[in-house]
Amino acid sequence: MSRHFEHLLSQRTKSMRGNAIRDILKVVSQPGMISLAGGIPAPESFPLEQMYTINDTVLDKYGTTALQYDFTEGFTPLRHALVDFVAQKGIQTTFDDITVYNGSQSVLDLIGKILITPNDLVALESPSYLGAISAFNAYEPDYIAIDTDDDGIIPESLEQVLSKHSIKFIYIVSTFQNPTGRTLTHKRRQQMAEIVKQHGVLVVEDDPYSALRFRGEPVLPFYTYAPENTIYVSTVSKTFAPGLRVGFCIAPPVIREWLSIAKQGADLHTNTYAQALASEYLTGGYAEEQLPKIINLYKPRQEAMLDAMERYLPNTYHWTKPDGGMFIWVEGPDGVDAEQLYWKAVERKIAFVPGKFFFINPDQGLGTMRLNFTKIDEETIDHAIKILSEVIRDNS
Amino acid sequence: MSRHFEHLLSQRTKSMRGNAIRDILKVVSQPGMISLAGGIPAPESFPLEQMYTINDTVLDKYGTTALQYDFTEGFTPLRHALVDFVAQKGIQTTFDDITVYNGSQSVLDLIGKILITPNDLVALESPSYLGAISAFNAYEPDYIAIDTDDDGIIPESLEQVLSKHSIKFIYIVSTFQNPTGRTLTHKRRQQMAEIVKQHGVLVVEDDPYSALRFRGEPVLPFYTYAPENTIYVSTVSKTFAPGLRVGFCIAPPVIREWLSIAKQGADLHTNTYAQALASEYLTGGYAEEQLPKIINLYKPRQEAMLDAMERYLPNTYHWTKPDGGMFIWVEGPDGVDAEQLYWKAVERKIAFVPGKFFFINPDQGLGTMRLNFTKIDEETIDHAIKILSEVIRDNS
Repeated sequence: MSRHFEHLLSQRTKSMRGNAIRDILKVVSQPGMISLAGGIPAPESFPLEQMYTINDTVLDKYGTTALQYDFTEGFTPLRHALVDFVAQKGIQTTFDDITVYNGSQSVLDLIGKILITPNDLVALESPSYLGAISAFNAYEPDYIAIDTDDDGIIPESLEQVLSKHSIKFIYIVSTFQNPTGRTLTHKRRQQMAEIVKQHGVLVVEDDPYSALRFRGEPVLPFYTYAPENTIYVSTVSKTFAPGLRVGFCIAPPVIREWLSIAKQGADLHTNTYAQALASEYLTGGYAEEQLPKIINLYKPRQEAMLDAMERYLPNTYHWTKPDGGMFIWVEGPDGVDAEQLYWKAVERKIAFVPGKFFFINPDQGLGTMRLNFTKIDEETIDHAIKILSEVIRDNS
Repeated sequence: MSRHFEHLLSQRTKSMRGNAIRDILKVVSQPGMISLAGGIPAPESFPLEQMYTINDTVLDKYGTTALQYDFTEGFTPLRHALVDFVAQKGIQTTFDDITVYNGSQSVLDLIGKILITPNDLVALESPSYLGAISAFNAYEPDYIAIDTDDDGIIPESLEQVLSKHSIKFIYIVSTFQNPTGRTLTHKRRQQMAEIVKQHGVLVVEDDPYSALRFRGEPVLPFYTYAPENTIYVSTVSKTFAPGLRVGFCIAPPVIREWLSIAKQGADLHTNTYAQALASEYLTGGYAEEQLPKIINLYKPRQEAMLDAMERYLPNTYHWTKPDGGMFIWVEGPDGVDAEQLYWKAVERKIAFVPGKFFFINPDQGLGTMRLNFTKIDEETIDHAIKILSEVIRDNS
């Protein structure tokens, strides 16, 4: 009886099952656990006090419109605000070109819906963001991995994939990547743009983290290098509040129109009230004020983690030193089994994500780990890395 | 160039195209148009003044939790509140059994995602709610129609369909149906429950309107007649605010678990802040106070429409007289072409929805119309029905 109606499940649920990472991460919520595993903003980074005023302003300014059904494409004032928001990142676009979704996760789902026929090939950075894979899986694609190094996607690997295979699109997290923290360099963006234009290929650029830059010069979004070949996807989750689920995209006209048709069937439109809040946050001077605070919160946390790694980790270990974002990627020497280390670390109340889960190929990344530094304070981070290093030494 | 990337579209977009109704309804937004076409709550039914307090309470009570990522299954206080909310409708359920989505549209989309393999058969009331069809279409089902009369689904028609065909599920709007306003009677619910239990069939009961009852005795949700065979889908859109996009469902365990897996990939979770607002609205005494106001607003509008129909429409026309909801369904005599009447009415600045769009079979419902009475005041309704009647007489 408990498996009642299981026989009715669609074919596609077979490719949606089995998120092994969710199973192993269940222990993370145990009391006393220090988690470097999530990808969650610090709650103290949210503009809680300002929310009282933002709410009142939204109700005064928009009245019942903020509570009513709205256009599938997005709340008009927010779409205007987003034109200015992306202009700060160097993207020139128009009101018509920006459409709004339930977080960027929902853009990825709808991209899968309108583009992927079962067994179509989707190209991914290796390693890649798991949430995107779980969005695409429902549409039953096959995947092909593109090799990366510290500068992001390796052009030769991309060229090789595209010359051998016909793909639906390439999915990348271009700046402060999840899981590695790596940024595709300016030069690599140029090279990649040239290759995708030459092959007439579509790129999905996911850019949730670029505003969280602690140091160094900003790189322009990949979109600006190949606007006609790129769907640019972003969110206010990392710079305002993720609970509001407000993401957006800029896409070539045919794609944008189909995303709206698909969205109409999937959820009618994105929460009007949340969009009104986001609009007020972006245009009312709140974002300018809050972003430096968020960076001032995260930067020392990242520095504390990098310092602790330098101090405690064996010198056979290597890690990325990103200029921003939320993650550091650690690679152990050959023979290290990071999942085994995970279980040992969990016994000592420290959790992280074993990096192998971010690879398509199950043999890759066995000795890698993703560590998040945004959620806990410097002292706790130092303690966590110290314990993790002890676990590593005890098991090598 | 404007059709750039069209060749990349997935197979399924073929079944998502062609919402003819959207095309003909484009004229509805013309200035001066009186629309009976929508299905939109009156903005004056929203608790705008109370929203200032509800917002402050939510921020005081939940703090940054209301702005943070949350569980895919829904915001915990809202799920508890919904247990009590559905208890008022006669549904006994538990916290675990209720999960929250981006409006009920999103539940319908995810039901399609986890259940429909291309060419699976979905059974629909004839006529049926278009939004559900547009959600399911993305998963490429075939449809089979079940005949209805003033009491809802006709048991003999249902029995006939189930004895001949293997179907994935039956989709119904059980109370104050969209488009007809009809309610499946108590007796028919009993008969239908018996049939679906006997055939081991799954029913998707969509119940957005039952709280909008103006008169007569409430009927228990179909769910209570066959809880093990039913996915109950509802929303706060019609009793709080549709712009918040908060829907929910109660489903058999296997279905519920798969809906959560699918939702994780589709949008991670529903807007935390909107869920916190809905929770406070339901538990803070606001809902009890607001619902009678909404009914006091809609009931006279419906009465005005029914009165005007009695006064102006030719006696060859028939229409439903629902005890609540948002719609009245009009049937003209044989030979009437309601789409032709639509264009004539639009010339005189009155819009409605020609009923044929709600049928699977393109030959059915040619002389029918769906009229909405919630959005405009009594005087305007009287005027609109008068003009519509003149158009009808001039074209018969």
